[in-house]
Amino acid sequence: MTDVNTLGEFGLIERLTNAFPITQPSTLKGVGDDAAVIDNDGFCTVVSTDMLVEGIHFDLAYTPLKHLGYKAVVVNLSDIYAMNACPRQITVSLAISGKYSVEALDELYAGIRAACETYAVDLVGGDTTSSPRGMIISVTAIGQGERQRLSYRSGARVGDLICISGDLGAAYLGLQLLEREKRIWLEHPDLQPNLEDQKYIVGRHLKPEARRDMIEAFRQNDLVPTAMIDISDGLSSDLFHICKQSNVGALIEESGVPIHPDAQLMALQFKLDPITCALNGGEDYELLFTIDPKDTDKVRFLPDIYIAGEILAAADGVKLNTKGGNLHDLKAQGWRHF
Amino acid sequence: MTDVNTLGEFGLIERLTNAFPITQPSTLKGVGDDAAVIDNDGFCTVVSTDMLVEGIHFDLAYTPLKHLGYKAVVVNLSDIYAMNACPRQITVSLAISGKYSVEALDELYAGIRAACETYAVDLVGGDTTSSPRGMIISVTAIGQGERQRLSYRSGARVGDLICISGDLGAAYLGLQLLEREKRIWLEHPDLQPNLEDQKYIVGRHLKPEARRDMIEAFRQNDLVPTAMIDISDGLSSDLFHICKQSNVGALIEESGVPIHPDAQLMALQFKLDPITCALNGGEDYELLFTIDPKDTDKVRFLPDIYIAGEILAAADGVKLNTKGGNLHDLKAQGWRHF
Repeated sequence: MTDVNTLGEFGLIERLTNAFPITQPSTLKGVGDDAAVIDNDGFCTVVSTDMLVEGIHFDLAYTPLKHLGYKAVVVNLSDIYAMNACPRQITVSLAISGKYSVEALDELYAGIRAACETYAVDLVGGDTTSSPRGMIISVTAIGQGERQRLSYRSGARVGDLICISGDLGAAYLGLQLLEREKRIWLEHPDLQPNLEDQKYIVGRHLKPEARRDMIEAFRQNDLVPTAMIDISDGLSSDLFHICKQSNVGALIEESGVPIHPDAQLMALQFKLDPITCALNGGEDYELLFTIDPKDTDKVRFLPDIYIAGEILAAADGVKLNTKGGNLHDLKAQGWRHF
Repeated sequence: MTDVNTLGEFGLIERLTNAFPITQPSTLKGVGDDAAVIDNDGFCTVVSTDMLVEGIHFDLAYTPLKHLGYKAVVVNLSDIYAMNACPRQITVSLAISGKYSVEALDELYAGIRAACETYAVDLVGGDTTSSPRGMIISVTAIGQGERQRLSYRSGARVGDLICISGDLGAAYLGLQLLEREKRIWLEHPDLQPNLEDQKYIVGRHLKPEARRDMIEAFRQNDLVPTAMIDISDGLSSDLFHICKQSNVGALIEESGVPIHPDAQLMALQFKLDPITCALNGGEDYELLFTIDPKDTDKVRFLPDIYIAGEILAAADGVKLNTKGGNLHDLKAQGWRHF
């Protein structure tokens, strides 16, 4: 009997899926990227799926159901954009215990609908069932992309520039703040938390957005990232995915990693190093991508893009150059919360 | 506060999804059939998804994990075949509590893999996460079909013949038997159940197959059913879906509903009417379809096809003509087990 924790998330996925061969000519990409890619003669269907479990991925003590519905969709769309593709449809499957009223589900679906409207995707199917405890939401996003313009995790080459589409660490610090306020509230139910001053970081956790605008900007500027992934596990972990699949190393400049001032301040309140939150926090849903250096000018004129480092040879490892000039090895971390 | 049970499964799905407009030109069919249909210029992508929850859809006291993995895939493939399309890829998302070992998950995935091999589909993605309790499996199947050959629930016309691809009720009776043997075993742990004599009905529950062969036979015989659905909720309920969406009525002949002798005998053991088990049992994963009467000869020479009735006008209702010559109204039943 082997405890699943001994393998970790990525090890477990690899063990469970590596015996599956690809046999269908239409399967261009199977397990191992942000999304699977299915060929339809030129235009490709891109498919991604995520499962959100109450008590693991969300806590309804501080997550409004409408936000939860919105986020459940957005995190999947983010995976489609991370392929440089455009989401078109979603399916939503839901398992719920008897404690949820119809009105509560209306709220959840209002959030799902808001995301469908914002990102112009259609809800086309799903499943609704009961669960012995809590809520589980499984969303599958289906997108479309030109075969020639898709960005895989495996395309980074030595010398490519590493870019980030926005600030990191805020979603993690928003979650820490919500967890702290929940603990205080459980001990002192008369104290109402005031989160007004922390709208930015709380919003980054509760209502993330996917970078549809980036994919549109890439198209307008005729840019195809050599590799791309969305930052869901943290910059460090997601950079490792690119490095592993591209068989390269990387150097990240601490000074190139964008951190919002509110996140900086909250990190200090929690006695955390802001760069650690940015590297390992996760759930920011920004895009991490690499570009050929000849495309530097295309990126320079786009808003919100930060050049954070460079792709190195695999032998050079995956490293952070701190503001103090020290080189640190970065570490990949999936969850280990079984 | 409205209890979800007041709406029932189908009412709840309708309430939650009816505010969602279809906006994408590529969405040919959204919520409301066995699968969604997405256009790619001629060939269509067909998508279906199902969620299986421990304690609701399966009981690991008598369900081998390998069978569970196999069934989780097959029930989704069945939805793709029910569109007269061919499944090509699946994604599998899994939430598991700490009680499962890596070896247990290996068994589950061995079953998933066996289904992939049997039905020639590729596992192309998924998600693996932890759950506070039990196991939840969410499978999405992606198929391909010619736009002109897809069969929707909405295409049945007055005068069409109603066909069934195989015997009904056995899966339900297999489940009843397993549940009874579990109760006996819990009271008398020294008594080992002997299920050898009941291989057929137990197999129908634990290891159902999807009717890929039917879809191939339709193609070979140049037949496109006017409407089709897979029988997952029971003949009665699934026939209602066709009647509602086609705006027609139906008459089923009791003598035309195939029931396996083992199911007949087990029904009598349980003091149940065999036809009730066939009408309301569910989980047989046979195909229920309607054909234009001019295609009768194409069906006559196919094995395993039972002509069970006829499509009537909506005003005639949905009725069963018993062997005794009495007319009964049929009822649609989804689950109500919140």
